[in-house]
Amino acid sequence: MVIMMEFEVKMAKEAEVIESIINKYLPDAEGYQKTVIEAMNYSFMAGGKRLRPMIMLKAYKAFGGQSDYIEPFMAALEMIHTYSLVHDDLPEMDNDDLRRGKPTTHKAYGQAMAVLAGDGLLNYAFETALLAADKATTVEERLHVLDAIKVFSAKAGIYGMIGGQVVDVESEKKGTQLSMEQLMFIHENKTAALLQCALMVGAILAGADEEKVKTLEEAGKWLGVAFQIQDDILDVTSTTEVLGKPVGSDEENDKVTYVTLLGVEQSTIEQKRMSARAVEILSELKDEACDNEHMQFLIELVEYLVNRKL
Amino acid sequence: MVIMMEFEVKMAKEAEVIESIINKYLPDAEGYQKTVIEAMNYSFMAGGKRLRPMIMLKAYKAFGGQSDYIEPFMAALEMIHTYSLVHDDLPEMDNDDLRRGKPTTHKAYGQAMAVLAGDGLLNYAFETALLAADKATTVEERLHVLDAIKVFSAKAGIYGMIGGQVVDVESEKKGTQLSMEQLMFIHENKTAALLQCALMVGAILAGADEEKVKTLEEAGKWLGVAFQIQDDILDVTSTTEVLGKPVGSDEENDKVTYVTLLGVEQSTIEQKRMSARAVEILSELKDEACDNEHMQFLIELVEYLVNRKL
Repeated sequence: MVIMMEFEVKMAKEAEVIESIINKYLPDAEGYQKTVIEAMNYSFMAGGKRLRPMIMLKAYKAFGGQSDYIEPFMAALEMIHTYSLVHDDLPEMDNDDLRRGKPTTHKAYGQAMAVLAGDGLLNYAFETALLAADKATTVEERLHVLDAIKVFSAKAGIYGMIGGQVVDVESEKKGTQLSMEQLMFIHENKTAALLQCALMVGAILAGADEEKVKTLEEAGKWLGVAFQIQDDILDVTSTTEVLGKPVGSDEENDKVTYVTLLGVEQSTIEQKRMSARAVEILSELKDEACDNEHMQFLIELVEYLVNRKL
Repeated sequence: MVIMMEFEVKMAKEAEVIESIINKYLPDAEGYQKTVIEAMNYSFMAGGKRLRPMIMLKAYKAFGGQSDYIEPFMAALEMIHTYSLVHDDLPEMDNDDLRRGKPTTHKAYGQAMAVLAGDGLLNYAFETALLAADKATTVEERLHVLDAIKVFSAKAGIYGMIGGQVVDVESEKKGTQLSMEQLMFIHENKTAALLQCALMVGAILAGADEEKVKTLEEAGKWLGVAFQIQDDILDVTSTTEVLGKPVGSDEENDKVTYVTLLGVEQSTIEQKRMSARAVEILSELKDEACDNEHMQFLIELVEYLVNRKL
């Protein structure tokens, strides 16, 4: 039996709240195009920690946000994350048959429908985020929606998540040498971009100024890269039993990671340095502007994520 | 030697203008993610009539629009159209090796990169459309951008183009019976939705009222369906020489079309009825609100498209 740490309990409670919010924004599986909607919802409901919408909501509240016009963006960000997994799992990409113990979308619905479900989720993310404009009660809030959706689209695209994914896919060609700089590029974009997006969009919708949004972008970068390095470390130091997925897969796949480039010890030092930087930035914001439980939650979340054992 | 009709000359001139506008918005192929940007631009530059941005610009001008903040939306719509072709051509979908005589994106860049280039274009379409908010000079215009991007996202998604594509893909399973209603659904969404989007976004950005935008939505529907029926008719009545692609492919692929359901004669009657309705709606708008050369161009364009021989 696992004794959960205090923060894990808090996080699990929070995840339930998030789950009930984001599920409201799924499309109804009806009409002639029903199959693709079923495939989209199947992928979305496959679970996950809902970290990104959780971070977004906490950032919004930390900066004083109180309206529900943040909700569509929370669901939208999870849709982006979900579509990226659906397309990543395709045979021409990672060719994965299972995700979280369930058949991947192309296994359950066929390859053509998985491509379309991914496209559907990506497009529907924007449709959903734009619902915030209807919930906005002032012109100022509507203009915040415009600013937020700009950051949202940039972080999801070729200068964000997709950019990182492209370089990752190319690096998996046998025999490719990857520099430290390229590896950092992959992590900053493939992993960190959507975490940055969560922090930044939350703050923008709450009306935070540009400087604070920039500061959060930096915190998100360090959090994202540290989070990814922890993944790479666990792939070497954990056991299959604890992790719930096979360890040692990076080495088996000749995957270049922080650990293969620097070793476990040096990677751990780097990871600690980066996560400490993220905590430091958030703590400064807390002292200056957001002395509240929500910013405290974000700080604890960073510490939890980079110290996690699974 | 082909003698071009007067309108074709006008259209060719217009296409050059459109081409120079939309090409400005392509991303630079640089950075670690260079390959995906090259694949995106390769797909985008493969040609085409640029009908959708052309219609958008004409609708904008017809309703008195004079600013260049329409431009990002024109490029964005062509990006949506392009990504849909890239994903449609994939082996798991239509499995096409050539498009307009050039290798399709997955043939030129590999299947994984074609999936990512399609995702990249779809996401970049939103990034690009949002540039209109920076070009907007008044709060009113910025709010028009919000309204326009809502229509844009809806027409591209599961209740628009993707929805039609899904039903089309499913109908291609051997032995599927397709009703007239389902066929109409496919054409209204797969073909008409982006034409509706072009007309509606143009009008919205020019400040047209909701009623007029609704009216254009209907005109776009009839134009789109009539356009698609003409395609199906030409597949039976034209020659490979005139059409520049093999005729009779629908019958060969057991594809259900207006022609297979109703025959050529009845399909032609239906097509004429629909395109006449589109012309009628646009003519009413011309009499009422937009007595100008741009609305006249749109009317002539409809007549040209549904009477074309290739």
